[in-house]
Amino acid sequence: MELLNKLNWRYAAKAMNGEKVAEDKIQRILEAARLAPTSSGLQPFEIMVVKNQEIKEKIRPIAWNQSVITDCSHLLVFAAWDTYTAERINHMFDLTNEIRGFKNEGWENYRQMLLDSYPQKDEEENFNHASKQAYIAFSQAIIAAAFEGVDATPVEGFDPAAVDEILNLREKGLRSAVLLPLGYRKEEVDWLVNLVKVRKSMDELVTVIE
Amino acid sequence: MELLNKLNWRYAAKAMNGEKVAEDKIQRILEAARLAPTSSGLQPFEIMVVKNQEIKEKIRPIAWNQSVITDCSHLLVFAAWDTYTAERINHMFDLTNEIRGFKNEGWENYRQMLLDSYPQKDEEENFNHASKQAYIAFSQAIIAAAFEGVDATPVEGFDPAAVDEILNLREKGLRSAVLLPLGYRKEEVDWLVNLVKVRKSMDELVTVIE
Repeated sequence: MELLNKLNWRYAAKAMNGEKVAEDKIQRILEAARLAPTSSGLQPFEIMVVKNQEIKEKIRPIAWNQSVITDCSHLLVFAAWDTYTAERINHMFDLTNEIRGFKNEGWENYRQMLLDSYPQKDEEENFNHASKQAYIAFSQAIIAAAFEGVDATPVEGFDPAAVDEILNLREKGLRSAVLLPLGYRKEEVDWLVNLVKVRKSMDELVTVIE
Repeated sequence: MELLNKLNWRYAAKAMNGEKVAEDKIQRILEAARLAPTSSGLQPFEIMVVKNQEIKEKIRPIAWNQSVITDCSHLLVFAAWDTYTAERINHMFDLTNEIRGFKNEGWENYRQMLLDSYPQKDEEENFNHASKQAYIAFSQAIIAAAFEGVDATPVEGFDPAAVDEILNLREKGLRSAVLLPLGYRKEEVDWLVNLVKVRKSMDELVTVIE
Protein backbone atom coordinates (compact mmCIF):
# COMPACT_ATOMS: atom_id res chain seq x y z
CA MET A 1 0.00 0.00 0.00
CA GLU A 2 1.29 3.40 -1.02
CA LEU A 3 0.34 4.80 2.39
CA LEU A 4 2.68 2.39 4.21
CA ASN A 5 5.57 3.48 1.99
CA LYS A 6 4.90 7.08 2.96
CA LEU A 7 4.64 6.21 6.65
CA ASN A 8 7.95 4.40 6.47
CA TRP A 9 9.55 7.32 4.64
CA ARG A 10 8.53 9.92 7.18
CA TYR A 11 10.29 10.55 10.48
CA ALA A 12 10.43 13.45 12.95
CA ALA A 13 13.17 15.57 11.37
CA LYS A 14 15.36 16.99 14.11
CA ALA A 15 17.03 19.55 11.85
CA MET A 16 15.59 21.49 8.94
CA ASN A 17 17.41 23.57 6.35
CA GLY A 18 15.21 26.66 6.09
CA GLU A 19 14.08 25.89 2.56
CA LYS A 20 10.55 27.09 1.82
CA VAL A 21 7.75 24.65 1.09
CA ALA A 22 5.68 25.60 -1.96
CA GLU A 23 2.29 27.07 -1.09
CA ASP A 24 0.36 24.50 -3.13
CA LYS A 25 1.87 21.74 -1.01
CA ILE A 26 0.94 23.62 2.17
CA GLN A 27 -2.61 24.00 0.89
CA ARG A 28 -2.97 20.26 0.28
CA ILE A 29 -1.56 19.48 3.73
CA LEU A 30 -4.09 21.87 5.29
CA GLU A 31 -6.85 20.38 3.16
CA ALA A 32 -6.08 16.94 4.63
CA ALA A 33 -6.38 18.44 8.12
CA ARG A 34 -9.63 20.15 7.13
CA LEU A 35 -11.11 16.86 5.93
CA ALA A 36 -10.32 15.07 9.19
CA PRO A 37 -13.31 13.46 10.89
CA THR A 38 -14.18 14.91 14.30
CA SER A 39 -16.67 14.12 17.03
CA SER A 40 -20.19 15.15 15.91
CA GLY A 41 -18.48 16.95 13.01
CA LEU A 42 -17.75 19.96 15.22
CA GLN A 43 -14.13 20.49 14.11
CA PRO A 44 -13.38 22.09 17.49
CA PHE A 45 -10.02 23.60 16.57
CA GLU A 46 -8.27 26.07 14.33
CA ILE A 47 -4.86 25.98 12.69
CA MET A 48 -2.43 28.90 12.86
CA VAL A 49 0.12 28.84 10.05
CA VAL A 50 3.13 30.78 11.26
CA LYS A 51 5.32 32.01 8.43
CA ASN A 52 6.61 35.06 10.33
CA GLN A 53 10.21 34.46 11.36
CA GLU A 54 10.12 36.74 14.40
CA ILE A 55 7.20 34.85 15.84
CA LYS A 56 8.94 31.52 15.23
CA GLU A 57 11.93 32.95 17.09
CA LYS A 58 9.72 33.88 20.01
CA ILE A 59 8.31 30.37 20.15
CA ARG A 60 11.61 28.50 19.90
CA PRO A 61 12.88 29.25 23.44
CA ILE A 62 9.63 28.07 24.99
CA ALA A 63 9.76 24.89 22.86
CA TRP A 64 12.92 23.39 24.34
CA ASN A 65 14.92 25.52 21.93
CA GLN A 66 14.28 23.03 19.14
CA SER A 67 15.89 24.28 15.94
CA VAL A 68 13.07 23.02 13.75
CA ILE A 69 10.81 25.74 15.16
CA THR A 70 12.87 28.44 13.44
CA ASP A 71 14.36 26.40 10.58
CA CYS A 72 11.04 25.10 9.32
CA SER A 73 9.23 26.75 6.47
CA HIS A 74 5.73 26.89 7.98
CA LEU A 75 4.97 26.25 11.63
CA LEU A 76 1.47 24.82 12.11
CA VAL A 77 -0.08 25.42 15.52
CA PHE A 78 -3.14 23.26 16.19
CA ALA A 79 -5.25 25.24 18.64
CA ALA A 80 -8.30 23.60 20.20
CA TRP A 81 -11.44 25.31 21.44
CA ASP A 82 -11.05 26.25 25.10
CA THR A 83 -14.54 24.82 25.64
CA TYR A 84 -17.73 23.90 23.78
CA THR A 85 -20.32 26.69 23.79
CA ALA A 86 -23.90 26.77 22.50
CA GLU A 87 -22.82 29.31 19.89
CA ARG A 88 -20.08 27.07 18.55
CA ILE A 89 -22.31 24.00 18.45
CA ASN A 90 -25.13 25.91 16.75
CA HIS A 91 -22.74 27.34 14.20
CA MET A 92 -21.68 23.89 12.96
CA PHE A 93 -25.24 22.54 12.91
CA ASP A 94 -26.45 25.65 11.05
CA LEU A 95 -23.58 25.28 8.59
CA THR A 96 -24.55 21.66 8.03
CA ASN A 97 -28.17 22.57 7.36
CA GLU A 98 -27.05 25.33 5.01
CA ILE A 99 -24.66 23.13 3.03
CA ARG A 100 -27.05 20.18 2.83
CA GLY A 101 -30.03 22.41 2.12
CA PHE A 102 -32.47 20.86 4.56
CA LYS A 103 -33.35 20.44 8.22
CA ASN A 104 -33.81 17.00 9.66
CA GLU A 105 -35.60 16.19 12.90
CA GLY A 106 -33.13 13.52 14.01
CA TRP A 107 -30.24 15.87 13.39
CA GLU A 108 -32.00 18.69 15.29
CA ASN A 109 -32.62 16.36 18.24
CA TYR A 110 -28.95 15.48 18.18
CA ARG A 111 -28.05 19.19 18.20
CA GLN A 112 -30.26 19.66 21.27
CA MET A 113 -28.63 16.73 23.01
CA LEU A 114 -25.19 18.25 22.49
CA LEU A 115 -26.47 21.66 23.65
CA ASP A 116 -27.78 19.99 26.79
CA SER A 117 -24.46 18.35 27.59
CA TYR A 118 -21.21 19.97 26.35
CA PRO A 119 -21.69 23.58 27.49
CA GLN A 120 -22.46 22.40 31.04
CA LYS A 121 -19.33 20.29 31.30
CA ASP A 122 -16.06 21.27 32.92
CA GLU A 123 -13.98 23.49 30.61
CA GLU A 124 -10.84 21.41 31.04
CA GLU A 125 -12.73 18.25 30.09
CA ASN A 126 -14.09 19.99 27.01
CA PHE A 127 -10.67 21.31 26.04
CA ASN A 128 -9.22 17.82 26.38
CA HIS A 129 -11.94 16.42 24.18
CA ALA A 130 -11.43 19.17 21.60
CA SER A 131 -7.67 18.57 21.68
CA LYS A 132 -8.16 14.93 20.74
CA GLN A 133 -10.11 16.03 17.69
CA ALA A 134 -7.24 18.36 16.83
CA TYR A 135 -4.90 15.37 17.06
CA ILE A 136 -6.92 13.53 14.42
CA ALA A 137 -6.35 16.45 12.04
CA PHE A 138 -2.72 16.79 13.15
CA SER A 139 -2.17 13.12 12.27
CA GLN A 140 -3.77 13.60 8.85
CA ALA A 141 -1.51 16.62 8.23
CA ILE A 142 1.57 14.55 9.09
CA ILE A 143 0.56 11.94 6.53
CA ALA A 144 -0.30 14.54 3.91
CA ALA A 145 3.15 16.09 4.37
CA ALA A 146 4.70 12.69 3.68
CA PHE A 147 2.69 12.43 0.46
CA GLU A 148 4.09 15.83 -0.54
CA GLY A 149 7.66 14.82 0.28
CA VAL A 150 7.66 17.42 3.03
CA ASP A 151 9.18 16.76 6.44
CA ALA A 152 6.96 17.30 9.46
CA THR A 153 8.11 17.14 13.06
CA PRO A 154 5.44 16.55 15.70
CA VAL A 155 6.27 18.84 18.65
CA GLU A 156 4.55 18.40 22.00
CA GLY A 157 7.46 19.76 24.02
CA PHE A 158 6.47 23.40 24.45
CA ASP A 159 4.84 25.70 26.98
CA PRO A 160 1.23 25.93 25.80
CA ALA A 161 0.37 28.98 27.90
CA ALA A 162 3.34 30.87 26.44
CA VAL A 163 2.38 29.95 22.86
CA ASP A 164 -1.20 31.00 23.62
CA GLU A 165 0.10 34.38 24.70
CA ILE A 166 2.43 34.89 21.73
CA LEU A 167 -0.40 34.11 19.30
CA ASN A 168 -3.21 35.73 21.36
CA LEU A 169 -5.09 32.45 21.30
CA ARG A 170 -7.01 32.82 24.56
CA GLU A 171 -8.85 35.88 23.35
CA LYS A 172 -10.07 33.82 20.39
CA GLY A 173 -11.29 31.12 22.76
CA LEU A 174 -8.45 28.81 21.73
CA ARG A 175 -5.58 27.01 23.44
CA SER A 176 -2.55 25.54 21.70
CA ALA A 177 -2.61 21.74 21.59
CA VAL A 178 0.31 20.63 19.43
CA LEU A 179 2.83 22.04 16.92
CA LEU A 180 3.86 20.78 13.50
CA PRO A 181 6.85 22.44 11.82
CA LEU A 182 6.87 21.74 8.07
CA GLY A 183 10.03 21.99 6.01
CA TYR A 184 12.93 20.00 4.67
CA ARG A 185 15.40 17.89 6.60
CA LYS A 186 19.00 19.00 6.97
CA GLU A 187 20.54 15.57 6.70
CA GLU A 188 24.13 16.44 7.56
CA VAL A 189 23.27 17.60 11.09
CA ASP A 190 20.19 15.51 11.88
CA TRP A 191 21.18 12.77 14.34
CA LEU A 192 17.93 10.92 13.72
CA VAL A 193 17.85 10.80 9.93
CA ASN A 194 19.86 7.61 9.51
CA LEU A 195 18.62 5.71 12.54
CA VAL A 196 16.25 2.78 12.17
CA LYS A 197 12.60 3.48 12.95
CA VAL A 198 11.66 1.82 16.24
CA ARG A 199 8.18 0.50 16.88
CA LYS A 200 6.71 -2.18 19.11
CA SER A 201 6.11 -5.46 17.32
CA MET A 202 2.61 -6.18 16.07
CA ASP A 203 2.39 -8.95 18.70
CA GLU A 204 3.04 -6.49 21.48
CA LEU A 205 0.71 -3.82 20.12
CA VAL A 206 -2.27 -5.90 19.05
CA THR A 207 -4.48 -8.46 20.79
CA VAL A 208 -6.98 -10.31 18.61
CA ILE A 209 -10.16 -11.44 20.35
CA GLU A 210 -11.52 -14.26 18.21
CA MET B 1 -2.97 14.04 -4.29
CA GLU B 2 -4.12 10.47 -3.93
CA LEU B 3 -4.55 10.97 -0.17
CA LEU B 4 -7.13 13.73 -0.66
CA ASN B 5 -9.16 11.45 -2.93
CA LYS B 6 -9.21 8.82 -0.19
CA LEU B 7 -10.16 11.38 2.46
CA ASN B 8 -13.03 12.58 0.30
CA TRP B 9 -14.16 9.00 -0.33
CA ARG B 10 -14.32 8.04 3.31
CA TYR B 11 -17.16 8.89 5.68
CA ALA B 12 -18.40 7.54 9.00
CA ALA B 13 -20.61 4.68 7.81
CA LYS B 14 -23.74 4.55 9.95
CA ALA B 15 -24.76 1.09 8.77
CA MET B 16 -22.58 -1.89 7.83
CA ASN B 17 -23.57 -5.08 6.10
CA GLY B 18 -21.70 -7.70 8.13
CA GLU B 19 -19.36 -8.63 5.29
CA LYS B 20 -15.92 -9.72 6.49
CA VAL B 21 -12.84 -7.68 5.70
CA ALA B 22 -9.94 -9.77 4.40
CA GLU B 23 -7.21 -10.34 6.96
CA ASP B 24 -4.46 -8.90 4.76
CA LYS B 25 -6.36 -5.61 4.64
CA ILE B 26 -6.75 -5.64 8.43
CA GLN B 27 -3.03 -6.27 8.80
CA ARG B 28 -2.13 -3.25 6.65
CA ILE B 29 -4.58 -1.05 8.59
CA LEU B 30 -2.98 -2.17 11.86
CA GLU B 31 0.48 -1.64 10.38
CA ALA B 32 -0.44 2.00 9.66
CA ALA B 33 -1.48 2.38 13.30
CA ARG B 34 1.74 0.71 14.44
CA LEU B 35 3.84 3.15 12.42
CA ALA B 36 2.13 6.21 13.92
CA PRO B 37 4.48 8.71 15.55
CA THR B 38 3.99 9.13 19.30
CA SER B 39 5.44 11.36 21.98
CA SER B 40 9.00 10.24 22.78
CA GLY B 41 8.26 7.14 20.71
CA LEU B 42 6.54 5.49 23.69
CA GLN B 43 3.49 4.15 21.80
CA PRO B 44 1.47 4.32 25.02
CA PHE B 45 -1.47 2.25 23.85
CA GLU B 46 -2.57 -1.15 22.61
CA ILE B 47 -5.18 -2.17 20.07
CA MET B 48 -7.78 -4.84 20.75
CA VAL B 49 -9.17 -6.37 17.58
CA VAL B 50 -12.59 -7.75 18.44
CA LYS B 51 -13.78 -10.39 15.98
CA ASN B 52 -15.91 -12.25 18.52
CA GLN B 53 -19.58 -11.57 17.82
CA GLU B 54 -20.75 -12.11 21.40
CA ILE B 55 -18.35 -9.49 22.67
CA LYS B 56 -19.46 -7.05 19.98
CA GLU B 57 -23.03 -7.68 21.13
CA LYS B 58 -22.05 -6.90 24.71
CA ILE B 59 -20.46 -3.63 23.63
CA ARG B 60 -23.29 -2.41 21.40
CA PRO B 61 -25.76 -1.48 24.18
CA ILE B 62 -23.13 0.57 26.00
CA ALA B 63 -22.24 2.33 22.71
CA TRP B 64 -25.57 4.06 22.11
CA ASN B 65 -26.81 0.86 20.48
CA GLN B 66 -25.01 1.77 17.25
CA SER B 67 -25.54 -1.00 14.71
CA VAL B 68 -22.02 -0.69 13.30
CA ILE B 69 -20.66 -2.19 16.53
CA THR B 70 -22.23 -5.56 15.72
CA ASP B 71 -22.44 -5.27 11.92
CA CYS B 72 -18.80 -4.43 11.43
CA SER B 73 -16.26 -7.09 10.53
CA HIS B 74 -13.52 -6.16 13.04
CA LEU B 75 -14.02 -3.78 15.94
CA LEU B 76 -10.79 -2.00 16.86
CA VAL B 77 -10.56 -0.75 20.43
CA PHE B 78 -7.76 1.74 20.98
CA ALA B 79 -6.80 1.37 24.65
CA ALA B 80 -4.35 3.82 26.18
CA TRP B 81 -1.99 3.20 29.09
CA ASP B 82 -3.71 4.12 32.35
CA THR B 83 -0.50 5.93 33.31
CA TYR B 84 3.21 6.13 32.46
CA THR B 85 5.36 3.93 34.69
CA ALA B 86 9.14 3.58 34.93
CA GLU B 87 8.79 0.01 33.67
CA ARG B 88 6.91 1.08 30.56
CA ILE B 89 9.30 3.92 29.79
CA ASN B 90 12.35 1.71 30.31
CA HIS B 91 10.88 -0.98 28.11
CA MET B 92 10.62 1.35 25.09
CA PHE B 93 14.08 2.82 25.63
CA ASP B 94 15.58 -0.67 26.03
CA LEU B 95 13.78 -1.79 22.87
CA THR B 96 15.21 1.21 21.02
CA ASN B 97 18.75 0.42 22.17
CA GLU B 98 18.25 -3.22 21.21
CA ILE B 99 16.92 -2.46 17.73
CA ARG B 100 19.48 0.25 16.98
CA GLY B 101 22.30 -1.78 18.49
CA PHE B 102 23.88 0.96 20.59
CA LYS B 103 23.47 3.16 23.64
CA ASN B 104 23.72 6.89 23.31
CA GLU B 105 24.35 9.30 26.17
CA GLY B 106 21.89 11.95 24.94
CA TRP B 107 19.20 9.33 24.57
CA GLU B 108 19.93 7.93 28.06
CA ASN B 109 19.70 11.44 29.53
CA TYR B 110 16.38 11.85 27.79
CA ARG B 111 15.19 8.52 29.29
CA GLN B 112 16.14 9.79 32.73
CA MET B 113 14.31 13.04 32.18
CA LEU B 114 11.13 11.14 31.32
CA LEU B 115 11.61 8.83 34.31
CA ASP B 116 11.91 11.92 36.50
CA SER B 117 8.67 13.42 35.22
CA TYR B 118 5.93 11.13 33.87
CA PRO B 119 5.64 8.55 36.69
CA GLN B 120 5.24 11.34 39.25
CA LYS B 121 2.42 13.02 37.38
CA ASP B 122 -1.28 12.65 38.02
CA GLU B 123 -2.64 9.42 36.51
CA GLU B 124 -5.52 11.15 34.77
CA GLU B 125 -3.14 13.63 33.15
CA ASN B 126 -0.95 10.76 31.98
CA PHE B 127 -3.93 8.83 30.62
CA ASN B 128 -5.10 11.91 28.74
CA HIS B 129 -1.66 12.33 27.23
CA ALA B 130 -1.49 8.66 26.27
CA SER B 131 -4.99 8.88 24.76
CA LYS B 132 -3.87 11.64 22.43
CA GLN B 133 -1.09 9.40 21.16
CA ALA B 134 -3.69 6.70 20.59
CA TYR B 135 -5.68 9.21 18.56
CA ILE B 136 -2.72 9.74 16.23
CA ALA B 137 -2.69 6.00 15.51
CA PHE B 138 -6.49 5.89 15.30
CA SER B 139 -6.37 8.63 12.66
CA GLN B 140 -3.74 6.71 10.68
CA ALA B 141 -5.91 3.59 10.83
CA ILE B 142 -8.90 5.53 9.48
CA ILE B 143 -6.83 6.68 6.51
CA ALA B 144 -5.37 3.23 5.94
CA ALA B 145 -8.88 1.78 5.86
CA ALA B 146 -9.79 4.28 3.14
CA PHE B 147 -6.77 3.16 1.10
CA GLU B 148 -8.04 -0.41 1.44
CA GLY B 149 -11.58 0.54 0.38
CA VAL B 150 -12.77 -0.43 3.85
CA ASP B 151 -15.29 1.65 5.77
CA ALA B 152 -14.32 2.81 9.23
CA THR B 153 -16.62 4.58 11.66
CA PRO B 154 -14.98 6.60 14.43
CA VAL B 155 -16.96 5.93 17.63
CA GLU B 156 -16.49 8.07 20.72
CA GLY B 157 -20.03 7.56 21.99
CA PHE B 158 -19.58 4.68 24.42
CA ASP B 159 -19.15 4.05 28.12
CA PRO B 160 -15.39 3.60 28.53
CA ALA B 161 -15.60 2.01 31.97
CA ALA B 162 -18.03 -0.60 30.66
CA VAL B 163 -15.80 -1.43 27.67
CA ASP B 164 -12.83 -1.66 30.02
CA GLU B 165 -14.72 -4.21 32.05
CA ILE B 166 -15.92 -6.28 29.09
CA LEU B 167 -12.37 -6.51 27.74
CA ASN B 168 -10.62 -6.69 31.14
CA LEU B 169 -8.53 -3.67 30.17
CA ARG B 170 -7.89 -2.27 33.66
CA GLU B 171 -6.04 -5.35 34.77
CA LYS B 172 -3.68 -4.86 31.83
CA GLY B 173 -3.12 -1.23 32.88
CA LEU B 174 -5.21 0.02 29.96
CA ARG B 175 -8.33 2.12 29.50
CA SER B 176 -10.41 2.32 26.33
CA ALA B 177 -9.97 5.60 24.45
CA VAL B 178 -11.84 5.27 21.17
CA LEU B 179 -13.45 2.61 18.95
CA LEU B 180 -13.12 1.97 15.23
CA PRO B 181 -15.49 -0.54 13.62
CA LEU B 182 -14.15 -1.73 10.25
CA GLY B 183 -16.42 -3.21 7.62
CA TYR B 184 -18.49 -2.38 4.59
CA ARG B 185 -21.26 0.18 4.29
CA LYS B 186 -24.86 -0.94 3.87
CA GLU B 187 -25.89 1.78 1.48
CA GLU B 188 -29.62 1.09 1.35
CA VAL B 189 -30.13 1.84 5.06
CA ASP B 190 -27.34 4.33 5.78
CA TRP B 191 -28.87 7.82 6.10
CA LEU B 192 -25.44 9.44 5.85
CA VAL B 193 -24.05 7.73 2.75
CA ASN B 194 -25.49 10.13 0.17
CA LEU B 195 -25.20 13.35 2.15
CA VAL B 196 -22.60 15.96 1.26
CA LYS B 197 -19.52 16.04 3.50
CA VAL B 198 -19.65 19.15 5.69
CA ARG B 199 -16.49 20.92 6.76
CA LYS B 200 -15.65 24.47 7.79
CA SER B 201 -14.17 26.53 5.00
CA MET B 202 -10.40 26.89 4.84
CA ASP B 203 -10.84 30.57 5.74
CA GLU B 204 -12.63 29.71 8.92
CA LEU B 205 -10.23 26.93 9.89
CA VAL B 206 -6.89 28.51 9.08
CA THR B 207 -5.19 31.77 10.03
CA VAL B 208 -1.95 32.58 8.24
CA ILE B 209 0.53 34.69 10.21
CA GLU B 210 2.79 36.26 7.60
